[in-house]
Amino acid sequence: MKLAVLGAGAVGRSVAELAGDYGHTVTALADSSGAVVDADGIDVDAVLAAKEADGTVGSARPETALEAEYDALIEATPTTLGDAEPGFGHVEAALERDRHVVLANKGPVAERYADVRALERESAGEVLFEATVGGAMPVLSTIDDFDPEHITAARGVLNGTANFILSRMAAEGLGYEHVLAEAQDLGVAEADPTFDVEGTDAALKCVIVANVLAGERREYTLDDATVEGISSIPGSALELAQEDGRTIRLIGEVADGDVRVGPRLVPENAALSVSGTRNIVQLETEHAGRLNISGRGAGGPETASAVLADVGRLPEA
Amino acid sequence: MKLAVLGAGAVGRSVAELAGDYGHTVTALADSSGAVVDADGIDVDAVLAAKEADGTVGSARPETALEAEYDALIEATPTTLGDAEPGFGHVEAALERDRHVVLANKGPVAERYADVRALERESAGEVLFEATVGGAMPVLSTIDDFDPEHITAARGVLNGTANFILSRMAAEGLGYEHVLAEAQDLGVAEADPTFDVEGTDAALKCVIVANVLAGERREYTLDDATVEGISSIPGSALELAQEDGRTIRLIGEVADGDVRVGPRLVPENAALSVSGTRNIVQLETEHAGRLNISGRGAGGPETASAVLADVGRLPEA
Repeated sequence: MKLAVLGAGAVGRSVAELAGDYGHTVTALADSSGAVVDADGIDVDAVLAAKEADGTVGSARPETALEAEYDALIEATPTTLGDAEPGFGHVEAALERDRHVVLANKGPVAERYADVRALERESAGEVLFEATVGGAMPVLSTIDDFDPEHITAARGVLNGTANFILSRMAAEGLGYEHVLAEAQDLGVAEADPTFDVEGTDAALKCVIVANVLAGERREYTLDDATVEGISSIPGSALELAQEDGRTIRLIGEVADGDVRVGPRLVPENAALSVSGTRNIVQLETEHAGRLNISGRGAGGPETASAVLADVGRLPEA
Repeated sequence: MKLAVLGAGAVGRSVAELAGDYGHTVTALADSSGAVVDADGIDVDAVLAAKEADGTVGSARPETALEAEYDALIEATPTTLGDAEPGFGHVEAALERDRHVVLANKGPVAERYADVRALERESAGEVLFEATVGGAMPVLSTIDDFDPEHITAARGVLNGTANFILSRMAAEGLGYEHVLAEAQDLGVAEADPTFDVEGTDAALKCVIVANVLAGERREYTLDDATVEGISSIPGSALELAQEDGRTIRLIGEVADGDVRVGPRLVPENAALSVSGTRNIVQLETEHAGRLNISGRGAGGPETASAVLADVGRLPEA
């Protein structure tokens, strides 16, 4: 397939780099600074090297990527809340041209799910978004396989930064601020870690899962989620938990129509107490018991793998 | 879709019972004793009640199910080795009619993979077999999503009976024969447990994974697998392992072109040391690290869920 990639951060770059391995051609790559477009396929390595050198993807206006020749638009610009723009507008532009969309950007399906589905119904294009929940883990495709109607609940550890911090606090007996600084040094936490440590990122993923499970019955946005982060957990709470064979994890849960994210006590040897930056999702199925899926929940090549798996599921034009 | 179900054991019965929930119609159900066929849909509950009462599925010859009207043939007869008959013949009959086939029977894809693929190439029908590896766990669909070319190894616990026995031996300090008898009482082990405890069942699943990973490059059969079971493991070996923070699991592995099944030492708190009848598969991916998938590896509704997920993936006629 011909792919137009919007966003040249870790995920967009990895999609562009790996697309050829999966038999696809990248016809456009853009970020907010510029774009490169070539209907026969751009020279990905050269474009990324140039971006490395001078900071811009190309000299064309970013919007030219939206007008390029492509079968699927890969939306990998940063997640935004509220109206989910400019990501939502990109989705709209592609669907109006009857093209497919694969999202790594959580905004459109977390904040405007019904609008996305309405546009999709009017289009010959399809919208897939496996990469928005749990990076490399096949969460949404597994829900789709089992049929959302037959999944009764989902829960899990959906933010690697928060999990790294809690794992380190428990393992080393260190305080939150100390471990956060360490995580920032390692590149595991952002300079402004709010999105991860206050539970917003995990909540967006849960909201997306809730939307998929609810189908047409109800639309969820971040406003429907009850969210509590980890920044006020004292080291002593982890010590107390350990004395009892338990630990604390930031758990997101979709059950009984509610979306909740917050610190929870879990047994130290339970599947949910994954370590470091790993993520896990548990799906409760009606007929097949509990399924656990764990893996890397973030990262450029990891998330790009999920994007390319979605591309592989799209019907050829 | 219209489904013809061959085999009325736990899996075939569950497929027939759940098919309606997933929007499908069962047009035929057969076992070796007889068949019921109705192009408008059989009355599954009545047929299964009658089988419960008098032991036969119906008065028609079993072969009439193969000649019935259907979009997909569900092959859920017992797994056989060598020529994989009669399962293989059923696959052949369906594909020659340009119908799809969904296998729960491991024989055709473990023992005659190249023959199945050759028949599929000549047919408008497709062959899917998620249910043959790990019951409810989405193993083959995940391999397909990531593309077999980008999976470097697979390993896991693929037999619930053997895992139950090893878990109980370790937890209770009991010997193999004692725990086997207990497992037989509970219905977790068959009267003749050879297939499970000698590693054959796990090896067949690994051979199927090896065939999928190798694609057209090489065909694997059970003869290519190095297999060792658990029946000669003394309780003392588990005790020694425990003193060292480890335990013993029957691990199947596909790596570097080899298929191996045998007892292995694994850390007690490692993902691979699942308890009881649970299964786990680890996939090593080229770009996305390690993925773990765990869940119920056997059981009627569990395996039927995988069969129906495959049916959902088939293109409509």
